[in-house]
Amino acid sequence: MNILVLNAGSSSIKYQVIEMPSQTVKCVGLVERIGFEDAIFTHEKNDEKYSEIVSILNHEIGLQRIAKTLLDAKIGVINSVDEIEAVGHRVVHGGNKFSETVIITEDVKNNIHDLFDLAPLHNPANLKGIEIAETIFTSAKQIAIFDTAFHQTMPKEAYQYAIPNSFLDKHKIRAYGFHGTSHKYVSEKAIEYLGEKSSEKIITIHLGNGCSMAAIKDGKCIETSMGFAPSNGLIMGTRCGDIDQSVIFFLMKKLYKSMDEVANLLNKESGLQGLAGFSDLREISEKAANGNSDCQNALNLAAYRIKKYIGSYTAVLNGVNAIVFTAGIGENSAIMRALACENLDFLGIDLDENKNNLRSKDIREIQSNKSKVKILIIPTNEEIEIAKQSYQLIK
Amino acid sequence: MNILVLNAGSSSIKYQVIEMPSQTVKCVGLVERIGFEDAIFTHEKNDEKYSEIVSILNHEIGLQRIAKTLLDAKIGVINSVDEIEAVGHRVVHGGNKFSETVIITEDVKNNIHDLFDLAPLHNPANLKGIEIAETIFTSAKQIAIFDTAFHQTMPKEAYQYAIPNSFLDKHKIRAYGFHGTSHKYVSEKAIEYLGEKSSEKIITIHLGNGCSMAAIKDGKCIETSMGFAPSNGLIMGTRCGDIDQSVIFFLMKKLYKSMDEVANLLNKESGLQGLAGFSDLREISEKAANGNSDCQNALNLAAYRIKKYIGSYTAVLNGVNAIVFTAGIGENSAIMRALACENLDFLGIDLDENKNNLRSKDIREIQSNKSKVKILIIPTNEEIEIAKQSYQLIK
Repeated sequence: MNILVLNAGSSSIKYQVIEMPSQTVKCVGLVERIGFEDAIFTHEKNDEKYSEIVSILNHEIGLQRIAKTLLDAKIGVINSVDEIEAVGHRVVHGGNKFSETVIITEDVKNNIHDLFDLAPLHNPANLKGIEIAETIFTSAKQIAIFDTAFHQTMPKEAYQYAIPNSFLDKHKIRAYGFHGTSHKYVSEKAIEYLGEKSSEKIITIHLGNGCSMAAIKDGKCIETSMGFAPSNGLIMGTRCGDIDQSVIFFLMKKLYKSMDEVANLLNKESGLQGLAGFSDLREISEKAANGNSDCQNALNLAAYRIKKYIGSYTAVLNGVNAIVFTAGIGENSAIMRALACENLDFLGIDLDENKNNLRSKDIREIQSNKSKVKILIIPTNEEIEIAKQSYQLIK
Repeated sequence: MNILVLNAGSSSIKYQVIEMPSQTVKCVGLVERIGFEDAIFTHEKNDEKYSEIVSILNHEIGLQRIAKTLLDAKIGVINSVDEIEAVGHRVVHGGNKFSETVIITEDVKNNIHDLFDLAPLHNPANLKGIEIAETIFTSAKQIAIFDTAFHQTMPKEAYQYAIPNSFLDKHKIRAYGFHGTSHKYVSEKAIEYLGEKSSEKIITIHLGNGCSMAAIKDGKCIETSMGFAPSNGLIMGTRCGDIDQSVIFFLMKKLYKSMDEVANLLNKESGLQGLAGFSDLREISEKAANGNSDCQNALNLAAYRIKKYIGSYTAVLNGVNAIVFTAGIGENSAIMRALACENLDFLGIDLDENKNNLRSKDIREIQSNKSKVKILIIPTNEEIEIAKQSYQLIK
């Protein structure tokens, strides 16, 4: 069964065609700079890369371009659109309505629309992707996979903020958590790898452009570091993560910044960018190694934040069997992993420096022999997870 | 030596006369509702209580009323203002200038004034108290004890936010922490009680009107839950503590609230008040015991937040010898202590229910026999701490 995995953003569409249940990735592609005459279209099949700069003025043109390519005799992977049996759409915000992957109906679309206010940068583009896909892949099942769904098992004490109850009841203001597809994927891989008995208490650490952590008990999420929006928790590339809310009032009242300026500052000019002057962790790590003190400080602060959450989640879980690093930084930055795990032997966490420095694309353990807690690196794959969930739903 | 301990707030002045080094409290008093015709003046000496409703239109009249009472033949404690050798002033914000108690000079007053922006509700009243005391107790040493000073030993990773460095360097935006006098007092008591070797790693939990926690290593603070202002961290009577900053933007942008309305909501209508409908913990505990689900939820959320910080600070300290509960709620609420310590045996924390339910005004241990971590209740006494520090400085 061919499943088209779609991730429609505000100015981009990412896609993969994945054959299930074999999980074979048949092709991978990306349309960037939608809305411009010089949009970039990239398509890859069997390690053969095809790329062009082309006018793609809206999402509809973008998705039609993708469909045409999928049907192409040379670089395509299907002979007719009917060969796509399902389209799995990544949808960022499912609110408290969706705790599972669902087949898209008019009602589901209305719900995604109702959540525009909670995810103004993502849900409108996600919905657009769905509506266009319905007109092109007419015989396929359209399926929504929500970034928030995995976190819907959190108990009230983890998701409710200490503001008047009406804001939860009436306005749905609460912690939702994001990167759910990734946390689900790697935690299931960890459980599969360790066996159920040795994986009752897992902490997953997703460090990519966005960064978040989750505490997972018996396969279910009970805590996560991102909250109402994907801005809270860990220090990220350009996002500050946790910050005293009174700083916002100070910036507006005393430094005369507008609300939009402050939101922009905290989301786009902060995090590693604000501390180090760069948002790319490889660059920061190199400069830190060469003695740049701002870069060293940025690494220290980011790792220290992770460490605090490891402690917090160990308390919430009352123990920890394994911690899992994943996503770009989590999989590739030995220095970030080393700093985050430093001086945690009281919790039974002890990293082996040599194992930590080895590179590989496989699941691997990097704890020392005396570590009571497994420290795993598990490459995440949200597209495979989306294909898997789509397949399970319709098979 | 007689020391007058003064805590001048925006509409109140609290005071005690304490004889040092014996730590004898000679009298205790309070002026409330300054600015009104029906202000309330209370004074207590030898368990004899004196109280009247009287017009006190400003702080100067209030402090003169206090001085007159101290000199009173019947309820007073001195024969001449010269018998007050030092006035110890509680000052809320010392910024990053003051890591210790200091004798007040013109320069110190200028610094307290420079910090008005960071503590607009407190520092102006504190400075007013100093300036009036200087005109009344002319021969006394005027001394400033800062609520932030104890936290000045925090390392950069604990106090810097992940926003551009210029906001730290130029605008002093960072975590300062508050309740320092209390955290210092109870942690020193704990070290004295446990002995230095068994008290290297302490977590202090101050639960009063305001609530905060501190991680203390070898007697020095390395982390605290309040940040730039006394609004972050734990859930308090009417303050929400930690909250995703994006909630603020949502409230302003989508619910059309003004910045002041949001600040008011988060600081005065949230916390236990927002969750339970009451801010008084005794009332909440009673109603929770009688099955009120909002009150049960409020207790759960507040205790869960404490638990997360216990875990976080255990990681930061890489271990914990003792946790210390203090202040009104910390000393008196068995249910809050029990919920916060529940299911933490992985960290070596195990509460004894019977010991926890005993009431006493002394330092006491409430952990079970199998607990590896001492759980202490230590009554705080900020006035004695202020008198102690004042005495040490000038003796």
